[in-house]
Amino acid sequence: MHSEQLEFAHAEGGVTAPKGFLAAGVSAGIKKSGKRDVCVLAAERACPASGVFTTSTTAAPPVLVSREHLADGMLRAVAINAGNANACTGGPGMQAARDMAEATAAALGCASEDIAVCSTGVIGVELPLDLVKAGIAEAVESLDNTLGEDAAEAIMTTDTFLKQLGISVTVGGRTFTVGGMAKGSGMIQPNMATMLAFITTDAPLSSESCGMLLRSAVNRSFNRITVDSDTSTNDTCILMASGAEGGPELQPGSAEHDAVGAAVEEIATALAQMVVRDGEGATKFVTVTVKGAITEADAEKVAFAIANSPLVKTALFGQDANWGRVAMAVGKSGAEIDPVKLEIVFAGITTCREGMAVPFDEVEASAMLAEQEIELIVDLHVGEAEATVWTCDFSYDYVRINGDYRS
Amino acid sequence: MHSEQLEFAHAEGGVTAPKGFLAAGVSAGIKKSGKRDVCVLAAERACPASGVFTTSTTAAPPVLVSREHLADGMLRAVAINAGNANACTGGPGMQAARDMAEATAAALGCASEDIAVCSTGVIGVELPLDLVKAGIAEAVESLDNTLGEDAAEAIMTTDTFLKQLGISVTVGGRTFTVGGMAKGSGMIQPNMATMLAFITTDAPLSSESCGMLLRSAVNRSFNRITVDSDTSTNDTCILMASGAEGGPELQPGSAEHDAVGAAVEEIATALAQMVVRDGEGATKFVTVTVKGAITEADAEKVAFAIANSPLVKTALFGQDANWGRVAMAVGKSGAEIDPVKLEIVFAGITTCREGMAVPFDEVEASAMLAEQEIELIVDLHVGEAEATVWTCDFSYDYVRINGDYRS
Repeated sequence: MHSEQLEFAHAEGGVTAPKGFLAAGVSAGIKKSGKRDVCVLAAERACPASGVFTTSTTAAPPVLVSREHLADGMLRAVAINAGNANACTGGPGMQAARDMAEATAAALGCASEDIAVCSTGVIGVELPLDLVKAGIAEAVESLDNTLGEDAAEAIMTTDTFLKQLGISVTVGGRTFTVGGMAKGSGMIQPNMATMLAFITTDAPLSSESCGMLLRSAVNRSFNRITVDSDTSTNDTCILMASGAEGGPELQPGSAEHDAVGAAVEEIATALAQMVVRDGEGATKFVTVTVKGAITEADAEKVAFAIANSPLVKTALFGQDANWGRVAMAVGKSGAEIDPVKLEIVFAGITTCREGMAVPFDEVEASAMLAEQEIELIVDLHVGEAEATVWTCDFSYDYVRINGDYRS
Repeated sequence: MHSEQLEFAHAEGGVTAPKGFLAAGVSAGIKKSGKRDVCVLAAERACPASGVFTTSTTAAPPVLVSREHLADGMLRAVAINAGNANACTGGPGMQAARDMAEATAAALGCASEDIAVCSTGVIGVELPLDLVKAGIAEAVESLDNTLGEDAAEAIMTTDTFLKQLGISVTVGGRTFTVGGMAKGSGMIQPNMATMLAFITTDAPLSSESCGMLLRSAVNRSFNRITVDSDTSTNDTCILMASGAEGGPELQPGSAEHDAVGAAVEEIATALAQMVVRDGEGATKFVTVTVKGAITEADAEKVAFAIANSPLVKTALFGQDANWGRVAMAVGKSGAEIDPVKLEIVFAGITTCREGMAVPFDEVEASAMLAEQEIELIVDLHVGEAEATVWTCDFSYDYVRINGDYRS
């Protein structure tokens, strides 16, 4: 999927950067702050789409409804509310999610099976359906191909910055644009649920291509980040392809198909990294790269064991080149390793080689660790496979944000 | 193994409470504080013994040597040092672990294969072998059947209290005593490695019985606690049976064998709970019980997902009845559940039934959550199996202790 020759150009806007998409974000009164909290993202007509969802067995009703409506690989629009996750809400919650889809379908004049719905916010509280429906009606009234940013604002909860971007790629004389928006500042928020991401493209893709490109991109982007190892009840990522670029449908294996796939992965990776940068209480953006593993699965296992270790994360917060904890995490990962071959480069400094300590300059280490961007490289020296995972540190603020009373 | 009829009597002392054991703890100069840091625990003669060790693939040299020396199920003594974990020390570390065993064997006049060795402390620093050997020689000189407490003191690192106890049980007219000591205040210390535990009994047990009783006890005690989900490079738990009670060897299936097994589990559980109570920065002792699972493995999976969730742990620190995070952890555990049957009792208050919120009195909840001992009960209502895991909360102090510079 990676093609080093491809050049991506910046495209103005987020989900409305590609042709064929409209969006709007409105204030429906769900957030106490009065900020935008309902948005609709619509294609001009039903188009090929695909979604990936949380693997949680306590998945929220909107996830169940969206999964059902995406079964035929077509979507006209997604309706999203922030401020209430509609999770752990039982039968009434399922009905509310269906009602959200129906209200959106009625306003757009399409079948409710062509609508996906997403909710993010407090768990276990009944969805204020009347507010949500009024917001959807208002948003559909306001739909415009310049309002991607309003939509991105409406899906935020405790996010400290708006997450959207667009890029275009030219291949074989054709130009395709991909845009996206996301929310999330913890795998799960302080009593809030979720990471949501929406990617749009004007490339003419089949439903099967949407599914293939989305899964591949998500596996190397959203599935490679961790803030606190927790999995939300509402995680959703949807790709919609309007085909408004206008040319013939892209065939798997073609240069155009590969280029759009690379652009989707580029957008997904950028959005995923934004989510980590906005991680709760984060003071460091940390890239964990594991090389020399026997399989990519092993490399990923080791990278996640390191990225999720509270001891590694607190050491990063403390600006401590504590490579012993990285060695500990390698050991508990379950991946196949040879302890006497282990090499650890901590923030640019080789601290361990052949499984043993390498003396290093503590002053130099302190300077490197004071940086906001930190790289941990582990070379297992037992194979050729590698994987990269992005994470953040664990700070006092993580405890403060998440230890606060729900009120 | 559990027999409700059994009565355990308190026995004075820890590892030297049972007959047939000697111990000593001395200051060898490894800890900068000058506190005791080397100890020897010896049986009067080589006796049946068994050990369980870390599953880490970066297991430290002393773990590798002890595993080898315990292969024949016999042990005369264990030599332990604190202040240096002899982990990630490569070939020289292996030689140092062997030298520790040989020095102990020479002082006691036995084969070095009858000696187990343990180290706990900083990872990746060469073991100061001369200090350790001098300490072992001094400890062997001082061996006495009243010095279990000195030994327990010598294995502490960042522990804030000494962990030892002894009990006896009378069955069929015979009285058996079991004693134990442990160290650990994190699955891994601030750049320190390890949980160590030593259990002694005067019951006449075969090597096979030692192995059977130890594994069963550890599975429901040390393997059911978590402070921060991290697995140390040095974790070790050893059971030694002196047989000094004097009667005939206990046969598996007999009331006596069962009673000693129950006493070993009782000691292991008490020591494991002490380790959690001394968890780094802990302000709460939390019992997580999962009922109504299809299998015990599923119950354990759910209990660990809850006990290891940073979001659940910070909510407990914040005294917040945030049951939505418990539902989230249930969902990510991978266990078989039915979301509409989920029941959650948070610190005595039913907060979720049939997968939906149950209104509760926030004032009452605050009072319950202010307690130092908290119980979380999750009933999956899909089967009959259950499991209990003990953990602690995640506090500012956890971040402070682990974010500190190594110096």
